[in-house]
Amino acid sequence: MHLLRSSLKNSNKSKNILIVLDGVGGIPNKYKTELEFAKTPNLNKLIKKSETGCHIPIKEGITPGSGSAHLALFGYDPLDFNIGRGVLEALGLDIDIGPKDLAIRGNFASVKKENKKLIVTDRRAGRIKTDENNRIIKKLSQNIQTIGKYKVFFKSGLEHRFVCKISCPTKVSKDECDIQDTDPQVIGYSPLDPINLNKKSLKTSIVVRKLLDKIRVVLNNEKNANFALLRGFSTYPSIPTFDTLYKIRSASVTTYPMYKGIGRLVGMEPLSLKANNLQGQIEAIKANINNYDFFYLHIKKTDSFGEDGNFKNKVKEIEKFDKFLPQLLEFNFNVIAITGDHSTPSRMKSHSWHPVPVLIRSDNSFSGLSKRFTESECLSGSLGIFEAKHLLTYIFAHAGNLDKFGA
Amino acid sequence: MHLLRSSLKNSNKSKNILIVLDGVGGIPNKYKTELEFAKTPNLNKLIKKSETGCHIPIKEGITPGSGSAHLALFGYDPLDFNIGRGVLEALGLDIDIGPKDLAIRGNFASVKKENKKLIVTDRRAGRIKTDENNRIIKKLSQNIQTIGKYKVFFKSGLEHRFVCKISCPTKVSKDECDIQDTDPQVIGYSPLDPINLNKKSLKTSIVVRKLLDKIRVVLNNEKNANFALLRGFSTYPSIPTFDTLYKIRSASVTTYPMYKGIGRLVGMEPLSLKANNLQGQIEAIKANINNYDFFYLHIKKTDSFGEDGNFKNKVKEIEKFDKFLPQLLEFNFNVIAITGDHSTPSRMKSHSWHPVPVLIRSDNSFSGLSKRFTESECLSGSLGIFEAKHLLTYIFAHAGNLDKFGA
Repeated sequence: MHLLRSSLKNSNKSKNILIVLDGVGGIPNKYKTELEFAKTPNLNKLIKKSETGCHIPIKEGITPGSGSAHLALFGYDPLDFNIGRGVLEALGLDIDIGPKDLAIRGNFASVKKENKKLIVTDRRAGRIKTDENNRIIKKLSQNIQTIGKYKVFFKSGLEHRFVCKISCPTKVSKDECDIQDTDPQVIGYSPLDPINLNKKSLKTSIVVRKLLDKIRVVLNNEKNANFALLRGFSTYPSIPTFDTLYKIRSASVTTYPMYKGIGRLVGMEPLSLKANNLQGQIEAIKANINNYDFFYLHIKKTDSFGEDGNFKNKVKEIEKFDKFLPQLLEFNFNVIAITGDHSTPSRMKSHSWHPVPVLIRSDNSFSGLSKRFTESECLSGSLGIFEAKHLLTYIFAHAGNLDKFGA
Repeated sequence: MHLLRSSLKNSNKSKNILIVLDGVGGIPNKYKTELEFAKTPNLNKLIKKSETGCHIPIKEGITPGSGSAHLALFGYDPLDFNIGRGVLEALGLDIDIGPKDLAIRGNFASVKKENKKLIVTDRRAGRIKTDENNRIIKKLSQNIQTIGKYKVFFKSGLEHRFVCKISCPTKVSKDECDIQDTDPQVIGYSPLDPINLNKKSLKTSIVVRKLLDKIRVVLNNEKNANFALLRGFSTYPSIPTFDTLYKIRSASVTTYPMYKGIGRLVGMEPLSLKANNLQGQIEAIKANINNYDFFYLHIKKTDSFGEDGNFKNKVKEIEKFDKFLPQLLEFNFNVIAITGDHSTPSRMKSHSWHPVPVLIRSDNSFSGLSKRFTESECLSGSLGIFEAKHLLTYIFAHAGNLDKFGA
C-alpha cells in the first residue's frame, strides 16, 4: 500500500493534519456511544463540510494494540510491520534504538523469598514515584554497564516503569528477541524465566538471565523496588519513513512518550511542548506551522477513560477537544482528518475491533452524508468501512498530492 | 485469515453458536424479500441487542456452492480451500475419505439404446425410492469390488443418489481428479465420457471408464435404474480443523448429510438427532450443551424452497425458525450468530451472490442500527458488507476469545 501511494505522490505543496483521539470509538452504553452523548457543536459544524466513513484498524474482528493501530493510520500494512512493545516504549523515552539493540520494557516490582523461591508481592513495587524510579535507575546504571560484550543501558519511565536497552556486538534479528516475558501477570507467583522461545534467541536469553541476576543483587536492599519484571523483548523494525516515501517534513504533537516514539519510527519529528496538554500542543503547532507539511496530533485521555470504563469522563474529553477545535481550524490546513486509532468502548473497558469514525475536511470532500461525528453517522459516509492503512492515501488525495494511477 | 485468527485465539471459556439458515437471503419479489415478508417477532426482539451487517459469501458477484459458502462461514478463505462435491457427499454419508480416495457423486439414471448409442431418458431414474436404491447398491457392491489395483466402494444416498469411492494404490492429487462429469444435464442426449481434463488425470479417467462399463453390465436388466451418471470427481482437501486451530470442541447439528460432511471436514462432531427436524436439533444441543464450545446449527429448507421458487414456503420456514428461536436463547450462549450461507432468492430459483444478512448477539454488540433481520436493515449495521470468511473472527472477538494484535 505505502509503495503504491509513494509512487503516485507528487510535489504539490500542502499542509495537512491527522488528529487521533485515542480509542475514541465506542459501542452504545445503554442507548448512546460516548461520541453520541457528547455535546460537540464545533465537530457538528465541521462535519457538514467533511467526507466521512469508518475505519477498521487491522482486519475484521481484530483488536489492535496502540503500535499496530498507529502504523495503520500512518499508512503501513500493520500485518507487514510489527513493532515490539519494548521498542515503542524506548522510542517514547527518547532512547535511540538501532539495528544492534534489544529493547525491553521493565517494571520495578516487589518480591519476597519463600522456600528459597522468589515470589512477586507487587508487580508495580507499590507504584513508586518517578523520583524514586530515577534514583534506582541511577544505581542500576552505575552498577550494570556490560554483560560480556553486551552493553546495558537503563532509563526511567513514569512511576514504576523503565526501559532497558541491550546493545549487542552485531545486528540482532527479530527471532533473536523472541524471549518469554518474565512478568507472571499475577501476584503470589515467581517471576518467569526469560526462556528462549526459539533456537535463535538462546544466546540473547542467556544475556537476559545474567542481567536479571545482576539486577537482583543491585536492588537487594531496596524496600519496594527490590526486583524487576521484563517484557516486550524486541528490536528495531525497519520502516521506510515519511520523508523517504513522500518527501514531506512531518511532526508529531503528542503528550505521551509512546506516541512520540511511534511517530519517530516513521520519521516524524516530535515537537516540544511548553505545556503538556492540548493548549500546549496547539501552541507547538503554531510555532512550527511553517516548518512541516504534515502534523500528527495525538490526544490520549479518551482512551484512558475508556479503559477505566469511565463513560462520563470519556465524553468530557471529547467535549474538551471540541472546544479547542476552532483554534485548530484557524491554521487553514488543506486537509484535516479526525479519527481514533481504534475503539475503546467504556462498556468493555478495553480496546476493541469496532469500526472507528473518520472525518476528512478538504475542498474536495463528498460532504453532507453524516450529521455528526459519531460511529453510526459516519457509517453512512462515502468512505464506507475501510481498512485504516488506506486513510493516508485519502488524506494525500484530498490534498491534491497524488497523481493519477495508470494511463 | 485462519492463521491470524488462530495465532490470537486465547483460552478464555465461551460457548457460541452459529446458526445457518441455508439460502436465507433474497431479493424483493415485487416489493419485499422473504425475510421482509416473514413475521418474525422473536428475531425482531433479538436484533435490538445485536450487531449487524451483511456478508458476501466469496467475492463480489460470485455465487457459491454450498461447500465453499460453508467453508467461508467456518473462517477459511474459500479461494484457498475447495471441496469437491463428491467428497462433500461422501462425508455426509459417513464414508471415510482419505488422501488415496477419489470420491464421486452418482445418480441412477434411465437410458435406452438408439442407433447403437445410449440416450438418457431420465436423469434420476424416475426418482426411485431409497429402498430400491439400497437393493441396487448391494448388487453393484457384490459385482464390482476392484478395477485392477483400484478398490471400488458404493453407498446409497436418498432416492436416486449414491456415492462411489475409488481407493487408489497411492495418494491421489487434485489434478488427477480433474475428470469431466458424465451427466449431460438434459434428457435425450448420450451420457458424456469421463474425459481427462488434463494430462495428470488420464490414468484415473481410464479407471472411471472401466467402472462405467462394469456398471452398465451389472444394471443392464434394471427397469428404471439401468445406468449411472457420475459427477463431482474429487479428493480429500487437507483443511486444518477447529480443534487444531482454536483448541475448541465443535459440533454440527444438521438434518442433511452434506452439512454433516462439511462440518466433519473442519473437525465438527455431528450430533445424532432423535427427530430429524429443528425440535430434534434443539434437543440434541440441550443434551450436549456441556460437551462442546461451538455449535453449528444448519437449517436446510429455506434454501430448498428458494430453489423451487416457492416464496410463500420460504417465508413459512423463516417464520417456523422464529418460533423456535426463544428455545435457542435459553441456552445463554455467549455469542449467537445468525446468517445464511448465501442468498437463494425465490425469484431466481437458484443460489445467488447477493449479500446475506448477519446478526451477532453478545454483550459487546454495537446494537441499535438495524430494526429487523432483513437484507436492507442489516446493511445499515456496523459490520457493513464483509467477506464471509471474517465472520468467525467476529464471533471469537465478541466472545472475548481473541488477544490484541501487536503491541
